Amino acid sequence: MKTAAIIGCGVIGGGWLARFLLNGWHVNLYDPDPDCGCKIEAVLTNARHALPMLYDFALPKEGKLTVCDTIAETVTEATWIQESVPERLDIKHACLAEIQTHCPSDAIIGSSTSGFKPSQLQQNATSPQQIVVTHPFNPVYLLPLIELVPSPKNTEALISTAQDILRGLGFYPLRVRKEIDAHIADRFLEAVWREGLWLINDGIATTAEIDDVIRYGFGLRWAQMGLFETYRIAGGEAGMAHFIAQFGPCLKWPWTKLMDVPELTDELTAKIAAQSDAQSGGLSIRELERLRDNNLIVILRALKQQNSAAGVLINEHEDSLRPVLSAEVPMVTVRRHVPIDWTDCNGHMNEGRYGQVFSDAAEAVMAHVGADIAYIKAGQSYFTVKTIVEYLNETYAGAAIEIHSWVRIGAGKKLGLRHEMRDADGTVYATCDQLMVHVDLGTRRSSLPAPQVQQNVATLYAAHNPEDAE
Amino acid sequence: MKTAAIIGCGVIGGGWLARFLLNGWHVNLYDPDPDCGCKIEAVLTNARHALPMLYDFALPKEGKLTVCDTIAETVTEATWIQESVPERLDIKHACLAEIQTHCPSDAIIGSSTSGFKPSQLQQNATSPQQIVVTHPFNPVYLLPLIELVPSPKNTEALISTAQDILRGLGFYPLRVRKEIDAHIADRFLEAVWREGLWLINDGIATTAEIDDVIRYGFGLRWAQMGLFETYRIAGGEAGMAHFIAQFGPCLKWPWTKLMDVPELTDELTAKIAAQSDAQSGGLSIRELERLRDNNLIVILRALKQQNSAAGVLINEHEDSLRPVLSAEVPMVTVRRHVPIDWTDCNGHMNEGRYGQVFSDAAEAVMAHVGADIAYIKAGQSYFTVKTIVEYLNETYAGAAIEIHSWVRIGAGKKLGLRHEMRDADGTVYATCDQLMVHVDLGTRRSSLPAPQVQQNVATLYAAHNPEDAE
Repeated sequence: MKTAAIIGCGVIGGGWLARFLLNGWHVNLYDPDPDCGCKIEAVLTNARHALPMLYDFALPKEGKLTVCDTIAETVTEATWIQESVPERLDIKHACLAEIQTHCPSDAIIGSSTSGFKPSQLQQNATSPQQIVVTHPFNPVYLLPLIELVPSPKNTEALISTAQDILRGLGFYPLRVRKEIDAHIADRFLEAVWREGLWLINDGIATTAEIDDVIRYGFGLRWAQMGLFETYRIAGGEAGMAHFIAQFGPCLKWPWTKLMDVPELTDELTAKIAAQSDAQSGGLSIRELERLRDNNLIVILRALKQQNSAAGVLINEHEDSLRPVLSAEVPMVTVRRHVPIDWTDCNGHMNEGRYGQVFSDAAEAVMAHVGADIAYIKAGQSYFTVKTIVEYLNETYAGAAIEIHSWVRIGAGKKLGLRHEMRDADGTVYATCDQLMVHVDLGTRRSSLPAPQVQQNVATLYAAHNPEDAE
Repeated sequence: MKTAAIIGCGVIGGGWLARFLLNGWHVNLYDPDPDCGCKIEAVLTNARHALPMLYDFALPKEGKLTVCDTIAETVTEATWIQESVPERLDIKHACLAEIQTHCPSDAIIGSSTSGFKPSQLQQNATSPQQIVVTHPFNPVYLLPLIELVPSPKNTEALISTAQDILRGLGFYPLRVRKEIDAHIADRFLEAVWREGLWLINDGIATTAEIDDVIRYGFGLRWAQMGLFETYRIAGGEAGMAHFIAQFGPCLKWPWTKLMDVPELTDELTAKIAAQSDAQSGGLSIRELERLRDNNLIVILRALKQQNSAAGVLINEHEDSLRPVLSAEVPMVTVRRHVPIDWTDCNGHMNEGRYGQVFSDAAEAVMAHVGADIAYIKAGQSYFTVKTIVEYLNETYAGAAIEIHSWVRIGAGKKLGLRHEMRDADGTVYATCDQLMVHVDLGTRRSSLPAPQVQQNVATLYAAHNPEDAE
């Protein structure tokens, strides 16, 4: 098993440490600044919560974490050394010199610097070719991007090995073509930060309003396509050159405080258009639109499930769409479209989603009899103990479906439902027999429902089983 | 049912139209420019695919769409009139004048302008108080944000009615405090676009690299928290004023082409810190980190399910984690953590997710016997026809689980599996008896598996049912 050396254990160093450790590397840790306040435990707690959830397979067994007293001890056997000490060139130079005195000659020394160029870090180094910028993004244990910035002194072999190691940790190492101050991402973050300061300074918007503008608007586009691909779609079939011709002149308008704009020469326009053509792999604007929309749907649905960020807005709007159930037979408990995130490798709705939609149907019945969210919050609920599902026909993303439900058992602690999933024409796609038991959420044990809920269940049972009354 | 008038039917007008129509409004449509190339059909196709998938309830019945020959006919009975004609003030003035000649005096006239201030649009209007900026974001049928920009001439009553109508369409109307050129979002988009042009112009990065920097890095943060809340976390417990003190001076560094920065006075720092405090509602940095991480997990998992954007990276890394199954009993077909998006209103893993994890277990068995993704792509697969699930114990987000699987039926077209979901201590959380049938994906009918698959199933059956051999 390989060993990584983490030098500097703030939030960034801690994030690196968690990536290595949770991907099965041994980690040696050293912090040169006793006052920095080691963040390791807090970051590791977060990372152990988050990173394993990202995958549908288990991560490797965690490596061993060793806190060291000296840089020498930390780096002697390291394959990768990550420097995340404060952003001062003199501190970084001293730290790198000490590392190079003790580390293996074939170890890679990555620096988390967000501002310095690799050639600056390499000044006066005994082995400048060993040092490369590997700039991560917080939270380092979740975000894939690493800006991998070499100088001309780094060999192709080192760059290639670095990329392999980073990919093995689940990162996406983006090799930056030319070293510049602040690399790529932070130049954008700078530009946006400055504009934000002006908006607050001038009383146009608050921090919360600016954040809402981003997370309810273009932030959702950027999370999946970035800037240029988004504008490629805006340009339509006429392409990127058309977009630039159409919107380019607006850049000259006195909209922002910062006016220095590159001259939109034919050459620059052609360069951007050619790069955008190469990027989109021959997809038409219609195909790109569909891709964008599907990504937006699943992102918004994911946030909706968490009731967080833009998902709160979807849930609020959805409340206005919630149907009032009628106890009449058939009791239509679900009426919806199959979303794009419900299909599997066979191209049809996954069997797990049948379970989910029948669970949604059960929740609708529960709400109807008074076992609603407020009832659950007050400490009681129904839990499913057994389901029998028969899958009769396939269905696909976009299909309109409804669930018809009947109460088949409705006495004491038990609630037994029969569900049929149908389309508008009455074709039955699946059936589900579902046995639920009423539960006290304090003890997590079965219990009798509240009297009103018992009464409502009995009323539904009678309506759904008229033959019993005879 | 209410009627909306859409004036101008490009991508933006079309998006407005789809929002109204799919939320049950009647829509009258007029495009003053016969050459603009009406985009309605394309936009409606996309919107009908996308918008209903966003919700777990059905949308209202679609309204009636009427294409009109004159503005008069379009607006006469409209409650809301949305103007999305080209960004030239003379064109907008002429259009607004014609609208006001014919529309009800209490109708709201929203303009989609991204650049003009409402007071500019209101110049020379007969009823300036009727005109307000409602600036949407493409795709208008999916993104929630509307920048609602009033001028001093708009009444509070009109603004309030406009907000209610927009919320009813699923939008988030953000009221902009002061009218300025380009409102809020486009000022950021401007700043970023300019920085992007410089990076391409100078050969630092391509359009694809810039997009990757955004969608694999800060774009994922912005989709859920925006700018200031993200930096609040970066500042740690010491708070936003500390963050500004620490990082503020960097803004003076010669990082970008555009150097005009507001003076970071104590007053501005205090203003930002106070707004940030108000925004976060008393959440600690630890709580904000957990919120951020959970949002990132569900966004990344959503993109993973689509195998799109950053989800591609997760899937590629996950491939390196895929276990090699042993046919020995117990056959461990799944080993994973319960992700945060699998829990429901009872706080535990939803029954639908049990179905999914058992489906994943079945896919692992299928892959083991040779019915893998390549086999499916070549036209054959197994479909589940019946499952019986018993829910024995609750489990929660973060729990490590594994599935033990046995082949109980393995002859001809049939594959019957028994699954147990356990924790590392052997506690059984649920069981599943799953009957699958081999299917020809061309005819979607049952068929015999390929000989090698039949042989592999028979071998597994023999290993899992040694008593049969006696």
